[in-house]
Amino acid sequence: MGTNTKKRAGIIGGAGYTGGETIRLLLNHPDVELAFVHSRSNAGNPLYAVHADLLGETELTFAADIADNVDVLILCLGHGESRKFLESTPIPAHIHVIDLSQDFRLGESVNGREFVYGLPEYDREAIKKAANIANPGCFATAVQLGLLPLAKAGLLNEVHTTGITGSTGAGQKLQGTSHFTWRANNISTYKVLQHQHLKEIRRTLQALQPAYSGAINFVPVRGDYPRGIWITSYLDSSLTLEEAYQLFEEFYKGHPFTHVSRTQIDLKQVVNTNKCLVQLEKVEGKLVIHSIEDNLLKGASGQAVQNMNLLLGLDETAGLKLKSIVF
Amino acid sequence: MGTNTKKRAGIIGGAGYTGGETIRLLLNHPDVELAFVHSRSNAGNPLYAVHADLLGETELTFAADIADNVDVLILCLGHGESRKFLESTPIPAHIHVIDLSQDFRLGESVNGREFVYGLPEYDREAIKKAANIANPGCFATAVQLGLLPLAKAGLLNEVHTTGITGSTGAGQKLQGTSHFTWRANNISTYKVLQHQHLKEIRRTLQALQPAYSGAINFVPVRGDYPRGIWITSYLDSSLTLEEAYQLFEEFYKGHPFTHVSRTQIDLKQVVNTNKCLVQLEKVEGKLVIHSIEDNLLKGASGQAVQNMNLLLGLDETAGLKLKSIVF
Amino acid sequence: MGTNTKKRAGIIGGAGYTGGETIRLLLNHPDVELAFVHSRSNAGNPLYAVHADLLGETELTFAADIADNVDVLILCLGHGESRKFLESTPIPAHIHVIDLSQDFRLGESVNGREFVYGLPEYDREAIKKAANIANPGCFATAVQLGLLPLAKAGLLNEVHTTGITGSTGAGQKLQGTSHFTWRANNISTYKVLQHQHLKEIRRTLQALQPAYSGAINFVPVRGDYPRGIWITSYLDSSLTLEEAYQLFEEFYKGHPFTHVSRTQIDLKQVVNTNKCLVQLEKVEGKLVIHSIEDNLLKGASGQAVQNMNLLLGLDETAGLKLKSIVF
Amino acid sequence: MGTNTKKRAGIIGGAGYTGGETIRLLLNHPDVELAFVHSRSNAGNPLYAVHADLLGETELTFAADIADNVDVLILCLGHGESRKFLESTPIPAHIHVIDLSQDFRLGESVNGREFVYGLPEYDREAIKKAANIANPGCFATAVQLGLLPLAKAGLLNEVHTTGITGSTGAGQKLQGTSHFTWRANNISTYKVLQHQHLKEIRRTLQALQPAYSGAINFVPVRGDYPRGIWITSYLDSSLTLEEAYQLFEEFYKGHPFTHVSRTQIDLKQVVNTNKCLVQLEKVEGKLVIHSIEDNLLKGASGQAVQNMNLLLGLDETAGLKLKSIVF
Repeated sequence: MGTNTKKRAGIIGGAGYTGGETIRLLLNHPDVELAFVHSRSNAGNPLYAVHADLLGETELTFAADIADNVDVLILCLGHGESRKFLESTPIPAHIHVIDLSQDFRLGESVNGREFVYGLPEYDREAIKKAANIANPGCFATAVQLGLLPLAKAGLLNEVHTTGITGSTGAGQKLQGTSHFTWRANNISTYKVLQHQHLKEIRRTLQALQPAYSGAINFVPVRGDYPRGIWITSYLDSSLTLEEAYQLFEEFYKGHPFTHVSRTQIDLKQVVNTNKCLVQLEKVEGKLVIHSIEDNLLKGASGQAVQNMNLLLGLDETAGLKLKSIVF
Repeated sequence: MGTNTKKRAGIIGGAGYTGGETIRLLLNHPDVELAFVHSRSNAGNPLYAVHADLLGETELTFAADIADNVDVLILCLGHGESRKFLESTPIPAHIHVIDLSQDFRLGESVNGREFVYGLPEYDREAIKKAANIANPGCFATAVQLGLLPLAKAGLLNEVHTTGITGSTGAGQKLQGTSHFTWRANNISTYKVLQHQHLKEIRRTLQALQPAYSGAINFVPVRGDYPRGIWITSYLDSSLTLEEAYQLFEEFYKGHPFTHVSRTQIDLKQVVNTNKCLVQLEKVEGKLVIHSIEDNLLKGASGQAVQNMNLLLGLDETAGLKLKSIVF
Repeated sequence: MGTNTKKRAGIIGGAGYTGGETIRLLLNHPDVELAFVHSRSNAGNPLYAVHADLLGETELTFAADIADNVDVLILCLGHGESRKFLESTPIPAHIHVIDLSQDFRLGESVNGREFVYGLPEYDREAIKKAANIANPGCFATAVQLGLLPLAKAGLLNEVHTTGITGSTGAGQKLQGTSHFTWRANNISTYKVLQHQHLKEIRRTLQALQPAYSGAINFVPVRGDYPRGIWITSYLDSSLTLEEAYQLFEEFYKGHPFTHVSRTQIDLKQVVNTNKCLVQLEKVEGKLVIHSIEDNLLKGASGQAVQNMNLLLGLDETAGLKLKSIVF
Repeated sequence: MGTNTKKRAGIIGGAGYTGGETIRLLLNHPDVELAFVHSRSNAGNPLYAVHADLLGETELTFAADIADNVDVLILCLGHGESRKFLESTPIPAHIHVIDLSQDFRLGESVNGREFVYGLPEYDREAIKKAANIANPGCFATAVQLGLLPLAKAGLLNEVHTTGITGSTGAGQKLQGTSHFTWRANNISTYKVLQHQHLKEIRRTLQALQPAYSGAINFVPVRGDYPRGIWITSYLDSSLTLEEAYQLFEEFYKGHPFTHVSRTQIDLKQVVNTNKCLVQLEKVEGKLVIHSIEDNLLKGASGQAVQNMNLLLGLDETAGLKLKSIVF
C-alpha cells in the first residue's frame, strides 16, 4: 500500500506509558501514518526526549496543536481526562476517537459521541462499524477473554479470579508502591474484591448471558515485574476438559490474537505482543481458566491499534506482528 | 547460658536449602550447639563449600557419621527420604526427631515413633511434650495461620485461596522452571486446586471445626522472586471487620511470631524472618485474610527451630530474632 | 514484494536461544521465507513445542532433513559444532552460510568456505559481497561498536572495559549460575581479563589501527536480568567531548542500527531491538564510551539477519524494525 | 550482661533507609539499648508505621526530643544535614557521635568535635579511643577493603575499578531512576570517574602509602537489585597469586567481618550481613581484587554499630551476627 493512501492517526497524551506504546506501534504500522503526538507539557521536544528507546527511530517532535486532517484520534489520557478533553476540544465528527481511559466503557457518551466497547473477540462486527471506541481495561480484557466462551454458552456461575499485574499497570507516577526498592521481590494486593474493572466485565458477560448474576470475586495482585497480566479463574462446571477446550477453540477460531493452548502456559509467552493465551484445566467439578496478556498491548495500546485497524477497514493484525520478549 | 549446658542438635541432609537455613539458625543459636551436619555426598568438606555465605562463620565440615550424643535430630531430607532414613537408621529413642518432610504430617509413624504436627499456633502445649515433630509444609503454614482463628470459632466455610511462592520453594534442583532466564519476570501456576499441602491443612482445620467440609480452593502461583509466600484467602462471613480483627488478635495473643496487622501488608515485611503477618479486609459479605511468611523460615527451618525450642524447654524465640531483609 | 520472489532461509540448530530468536525474526521478515528449521532432537514437533511463545504464530514443525533449495543457511549451533557440521554435511557451494558460533571469526575456513566477519559497521561492503559470514560474538559486537571510530582514527591506546550481560548470554543449559534462586539479585564476574571475545575484538581493531597493541582489560559481569549487554570503556584521549561526538556521529552516519546518544543512556532503550546506542563522556583526560545492545539480537540473531539482508541484496533493516520492550 | 549495665544509644534521623537498618540492629543488640529514635516528621508514630517490617518487634514510637542520657548518638541524616544538626543542637561533649553522612570524613570538625574515620580494618585502635566517628561511604568501604593490604605494603599504582550498587544506595527518595518500571532489568552508570567517595578513598590509601598518586578510575553502575555492592579492581602487580593471598590473609587476620575467599565469590554471600568478602585473581601481570558487601550494613549501619561496639569497649561483633539472605 503506497504512502499516499495511508490512513492518518493522531495521539493525544503521548507522554505516558500507553501513549509511548501507541507511538511505537504506529511508527512501524504499514498502513497508518503517525500524524502527530500531542503533549502539552512536552511540545517541541523530540519524542525520544520522553521515550528514550525511540532514539534512532524517529525525529518527530511533540505537537502543541491538534491537527484535524487525521482519520482517528487515540486518547491516551488518564481516567476522567478523556471526558474533559472531549468536552472542551471540538473534534470534527468524522474523526474516529479511540479512548483508552475508563470514561466511556459503560455506555457513556459525550457531545453526542457514542462509544462501542472495543473488545474484538466480543463483538468485532460492531467495532468495524463503530464511530468511536472505548478501549477495555487491562485486567478487564484478560478476565473477559477467559470467560467469554462460557458466557456465550450460558455456562457462567460464580467466578473466583486471581489477577497478577506488572508495575506498568500503575503508570509512570512515582509513588511508594512503584519504588524499585520496595517493589523488587515483593508481593501485595489492592482493591481486593472491589476492582473498578469489574463493572465493564459484568456488563459484557451479562450481555452474553443475561441470567448471570455477575458474581466475580477478583483478587488483584501487584507482581514483581514490569509487564504482563496473569489471570486464573475457576468456577463450577459440568463440562469435561475436552468439551471445554472445544467450546473455547470454536469461540476463538478466526480471532488472530487470542489462542487456546492445550499445554501449560507461562506469562512470558505473550509479553511484548498483542496476544492473549488461554489454557484450561478441569479439577473435579471445577473448570480452571488461565488467560494471559501484555497489559500495555492487548490490555491497552495494542488492542487500541487492533480496534483502529478494524474501524479503518485494515487487516486486523496490521502493525501488530510483534516479536515477544520471550526471555 | 554457659556452653556446658547447651543442648546439642544434629542435622541430617544439610546440603539443601532447608538444611542450609537450619545450619544458619543453629550457628547463632544462644542455647543450642550445632553438633554435626550429616551429608553423605559432602562428607569432609567445609560447610561453606556448599553454603558459600557461611565463609567466615564456621570451620565446621560435613560429617560422614551420625553421632548419638545429641538431644535432637533435624531431618532436612526430601519427601519419602525421611521415612527411609528412619526405617534404616537406628536412632536412640530418647533423641527427638524433627522432620521437615511431608512423611509424618498426617499421623504416620515409623518404628514406633509418633509425630506431633509442629504448628505452635495450633497446639503449642502438645509440641512442648512431644517426642518427635512433623514440621508443617510452607504453604500449609501460611494458609493455616490465616484460617486457624476462624476454625476454632467454628466459622469456616468454603475457602478460596491464592498462594504465591518464591523459587526457593521448589528446592535447588535444576529444572526448566528454575532457570533464571525462564523465571525472571514470569508467572505461572501449578497443581491448581490439587496441591498436596491441602491434606495437612484440612486435617488441622477439621480437628478444630469438625463440621467443616474442608473445601479449600487453592491456586498456587510461581512467583518471580526467591523467598516468601503470600496467601490471600476469602470466605463468606457475617463478622464485621472489627469482630474479625478481635478474633484474630485474641487468638494470636502470646504467640511471638504471628502478628495481626491493621494496616496493609506486603511480603518483604517478613522475608528472612520467622514471622507471619496476618491482615484482614471485609468486602460486602466476604472476609478476606492475607497471611505472609518466609517459606524457608516460618515455612520450614525457622519453624523447625521454634519447635525445637519448645520441645527442649527453651525460650520459643531463642535464635530466631532475625533481621528482615526489608528491601 | 510478492511471495514468489521471496528468498529462502533455513536454520540449523533451531532449539536454542539464538535459534529461537532467528525463527522469530524470519517469521515476520517481509522478504525472506523461513524454509525450514532443523533440529535433530525435536524433528516432527511444532516449533512452539520448544519455543512456547510461537503458539499462534506458526504451525511449522522442526525438520529432520536439510533442504538445499534455500539461499542461506543460518547456523545456530554451539561453539565447535558449526565446524563439525560443515565438515560432515555437504552443503552446495551457492548456499550462503551465516554462522553464529565463534568457529570462523578469526579467519578460519572449512572445505574451502571462507568467512567474512559480519560486523556491518566495520565493513558493510565486504559483507554485501561475502559468500559466508562469521557472525560476531555478543560482547565483541558491543565492545567494538564503542571503539571502531577511535580505531579508524588511529586514536586507540590501552582500553579499560566493564561489560555486564544478561543470563541469556549463557544459553539455556541448566547450571548453577543459571538457577533463578542463585542468580536473582546477585552479581558475579567470570573470565576476568581473559574473555574469549578479546581475540576477535583485537583482530578488528588492529586491522583498522595497525599500531594498536590490542590492550583491552575486560571485566565481564553476570547481570541480574535476562537480556542485554552494557559496556563502559575508557581510555586516555586528547579529544574534547565535542570532537569525540563528531567523530562517532560521522562514523555511524548511514548505519541504521547504531546511534550516538548525546544524553545519558540506559540498557532498556535497546532491549528486544537490533539497535546499539553509544554515549560518550569526557572526564579530565579520559574518554568514556558506553555502548549497549540486546545480546540476542544485535549481539547474535538480529545481526545475523542484518548480515543476511546485506548478503542477499535486501534492505538492511528488513524484518528488524522491532518494538523495544522499553519497560 | 544484665539490662542495668547496658549502654544506651539514640538515633537521629530514623525514618530513612540507614536509620531503619540501625534500628533493626539495635533492637537485637545484646549490650546496647535503643534509647530513642528521633524524627521530626514522624514524632509520636510507632516505628513500624514507617518501617513496616518492625511490626511485632517493638512498640517504640519516634521521639520529638533528643534525650541526653545516652552514651552515643548515631546520625542517620543526609549529606550536609549532619553538620547543620551538630551546629544547631547542643550535644553534651561526653556523648559520642557516629555520623553516617559524608560531612566529616575528610578531617572536618564542628564545634570542637573531631572525628575519626570509622573503618576498623584500617585503624581499629584509633576507633576504640575515638570521641566521634565519621562512618565511611558504602562504595568507599568496599573499594578500600579491596586495596588496604596493597597500600600498606606500598604496592598500589593506578587502579581500575568497577562498582555495582543496589537501589538502596540511592535512598528512599522517589525519582526516575528509582521507579521500578524503569530500573527492573536495567543497567546504567553515573558519576563515571568522578564519584564523591574517591576523596575519602584516596585519603586513606595515601595515608598508608604516601607515594601513591591516588589514581583510581572508578565506574559506578546502578544494579538491578535492592541491596549489595560488588567491586572489581585491578592493577599492575608483580605479586604471585599466592603471595597476594598471603598478604591479604595476613592483613585481615583478626578482623571478624572481612574474610578472604580462595574460591569464586558472588554478591549474595554477604547480603543482609555485616561481612565483606575479598577474592583475588592473577591474570598475566594484573592482580584482580573482588570485594563485596551489603551497602546498608558493612557499607553503612552495620559498620556504624561495629564502630559503636569498638568505641564503647564492647565485643566488636555484638549485635552483628546476622543471617544472610543467601537466596
